[in-house]
Amino acid sequence: MGPHPTVAAIRLAVRRVLHDVLTTSADPHPLVLAACSGGADSMALAAALAFEAPRLGVRAGAVTVDHGLQAGSDVRAREVADRLCALGLDPVDAVGVTVGRQGGPEAAARDARYAALDATAERRGAAAVLLGHTRDDQAETVLLGLARGSGIRSLSGMAAVSGVGGRYRRPFLLLDRDTVRRGCLAQGITVWEDPHNHDPAYTRSRVRHEALPVLEKSLGKGVVEALARTAQLSRDDADALDQWAADAQGEAACEDGSLDVARLHTLPPAVRRRVIRRAAVAAGSPPGFLFARHIEEVDRLVTGWRGQKAINLPGGVAALRSNGRLFFTPS
Amino acid sequence: MGPHPTVAAIRLAVRRVLHDVLTTSADPHPLVLAACSGGADSMALAAALAFEAPRLGVRAGAVTVDHGLQAGSDVRAREVADRLCALGLDPVDAVGVTVGRQGGPEAAARDARYAALDATAERRGAAAVLLGHTRDDQAETVLLGLARGSGIRSLSGMAAVSGVGGRYRRPFLLLDRDTVRRGCLAQGITVWEDPHNHDPAYTRSRVRHEALPVLEKSLGKGVVEALARTAQLSRDDADALDQWAADAQGEAACEDGSLDVARLHTLPPAVRRRVIRRAAVAAGSPPGFLFARHIEEVDRLVTGWRGQKAINLPGGVAALRSNGRLFFTPS
Repeated sequence: MGPHPTVAAIRLAVRRVLHDVLTTSADPHPLVLAACSGGADSMALAAALAFEAPRLGVRAGAVTVDHGLQAGSDVRAREVADRLCALGLDPVDAVGVTVGRQGGPEAAARDARYAALDATAERRGAAAVLLGHTRDDQAETVLLGLARGSGIRSLSGMAAVSGVGGRYRRPFLLLDRDTVRRGCLAQGITVWEDPHNHDPAYTRSRVRHEALPVLEKSLGKGVVEALARTAQLSRDDADALDQWAADAQGEAACEDGSLDVARLHTLPPAVRRRVIRRAAVAAGSPPGFLFARHIEEVDRLVTGWRGQKAINLPGGVAALRSNGRLFFTPS
Repeated sequence: MGPHPTVAAIRLAVRRVLHDVLTTSADPHPLVLAACSGGADSMALAAALAFEAPRLGVRAGAVTVDHGLQAGSDVRAREVADRLCALGLDPVDAVGVTVGRQGGPEAAARDARYAALDATAERRGAAAVLLGHTRDDQAETVLLGLARGSGIRSLSGMAAVSGVGGRYRRPFLLLDRDTVRRGCLAQGITVWEDPHNHDPAYTRSRVRHEALPVLEKSLGKGVVEALARTAQLSRDDADALDQWAADAQGEAACEDGSLDVARLHTLPPAVRRRVIRRAAVAAGSPPGFLFARHIEEVDRLVTGWRGQKAINLPGGVAALRSNGRLFFTPS
C-alpha cells in the first residue's frame, strides 16, 4: 500500500523540484535546505524533503528562524530543530534574528527571515532553500498586491524560483493548503501554529480569515485557484513587458544618455511608462518612492508637450525635455 | 452661488466627454444619448447631459431599456422616459427587449440591453451613447474578472470608450458612486433602484454588498480605487501585449499560412501564447471556448516537442507541428 494520496502529492511536488536542482547544480550531491517555521506547511515540506532526498542522492538539511517576537520563541525554535533532526535532516540550524521596524511588522519580519535564510544557505553551501508556500498563500499575496493598485507586477505573487541564482524554490505553489495539512495529519507530524497567522492585526491574517472566505462565498469556490492563475499569467506578462521596455530603452537612447522623444512617442503607453520608470530609477530615483503620478507627469513631457518645466522626481532626480530629448539629471 | 460640488464634478465629467465627442464628430451638432435605467447613477448622467449639451451645441436625448423581467416594468420604463423628457431631453426612447438565457441571467440581460442601445443609436443617428458606470462599478467588474482567473484582459474592466466607432462613453468611470448619488440628492432628482442590485442571486450584487465591504475592511479603504487603477493599468498592458502578438504573428507567418516554430521559440511565453491564441481563433476556434489548457498544450508543440500528434481545439480546429512549422487546420 502506497502513502496517503495527499502525502504522495506532497512528495511528488518536492521530488520535481529536487530533480530540477540536480539538473542545474554542479555538485552531484547538492545540499538542499527546508525553511521551516514548525507550522503544518513547512513541516510537511521538511518531511517530504527528508523522504525524497536520499533516493536522489541529494543531501537534506533544514533551517528554522527564531524571530524573537514572542516570549519563549527561542525554546520553541530549538523544539522545531529537534523535530527536524528527528526526521533525519542534517544539518539543522536554528537561527535567531532581530526584527527591525522598516516597512511595518510583516515586512520587517520577512526581511529579517530572508536575510537569515540567505546567510545560512551561504554558510552551509546549500544549492537551494525550499519554502512551504501553498497556492492559498499565493492567492493571499495576489490580493495584497491588488490592494496596492500598482499594476500587474504586484499581482504576480511569489515566483516558483527566486532569489540569488534561483536559490529559493516553492514546491507547493500549485498545491492547496488543505492537501498539505491533511498530508501532515496522515503522517502524524507534530506541528506548531504561529499565533500571528490568526492575529487580525496582520493584514495577511485578515485576508486569509476574512477576505478570502467572503470572496469564495460571493464569487465561487474557484477563487483561490483563479488568483493563483492570475499570479502566473501576470508574472509572464510583466516579464514580457519588462523585456520590451528594456529593448525600447536601448533603441531610444541617445549618445548623451537622454531618450529620443519621437521614438518614445511611437511606443504603446504601457511600454513607454516602463521605459520612463527604468530611466528614472537608473538616474537614482528610488523605485519604492516612484509612483504612477510621477511617471504620468513625465509621460506628459512626451505626449502632452506644451513647454513644461523640469519635473522633480524622488531621490533628487529631475526629468526635463529639451530639443526633442528627455533628460534625467540631478535636480 | 455655483452648484453643489458633487453636481459640479458630475457635470465636468460629462462636459469633458462632450468636448471629446465634438472634436471627433463630423456633425457640428451631434446627437448624444444618455442610457438610463432610472437609477441614481444614470439619472445623474441624464441630468448632467441635459444641462451641459445645450451650452456646447450638442443635441441631447436618452434611451431607457425595458428588460421585461418584472411585472409592470413597461409602466416603469414609461415613467422613466417621462422623467427624462421633463429634463428637456429629446428624443427619449423607451425600448422593450426580450432577454434570452445564453450565458446566465446577467449576461443575457446585458446582451439584450446593448443590442437595444446599438439599434436606438443607429436609428436616431446618435454620435455617442453615455453610460453611467462609476468607479465602484469598475471595481466590481475587476473582481468579477479576477474570479475568472483568465489573465489581465479580464482584469481590465470597462473601457472609457468602447463599442463600434467608440460609440459608448463612460464619463463617470473615475467618479465614485457616493459622489454621483449625493449629486442626485442635491438636485432633488427622483430615482428608482433596480431590485436586482440588491438580489443576492446575482453575482454582481454579492460582490457589491458582500465582497467589496469585506475587502475594504481587510485591506483598507483604498481598495475600490486600487481596483479601478488596476483596470486601467491592465488594459494598457493587455493592449501593448496584443500589439506585440499581432506583430510577432506577422513575422512568424510562412507563405503557406503556418507559423515558424523557431521564431515562436524566441518569443517570451506571454507573447507566444497570445500568438497561438490568435492563430487558433483565426482558424475558427471560438474564443469563449478556447481555454488556457488548450493554449498550453499547443505551446508544448513549440517548447516541449517530442513528436506529439495533432491537438484538437474547440470549433473543429487541429493544431499540429510538421517540418518546423505550426499548422492550424480543420480537424
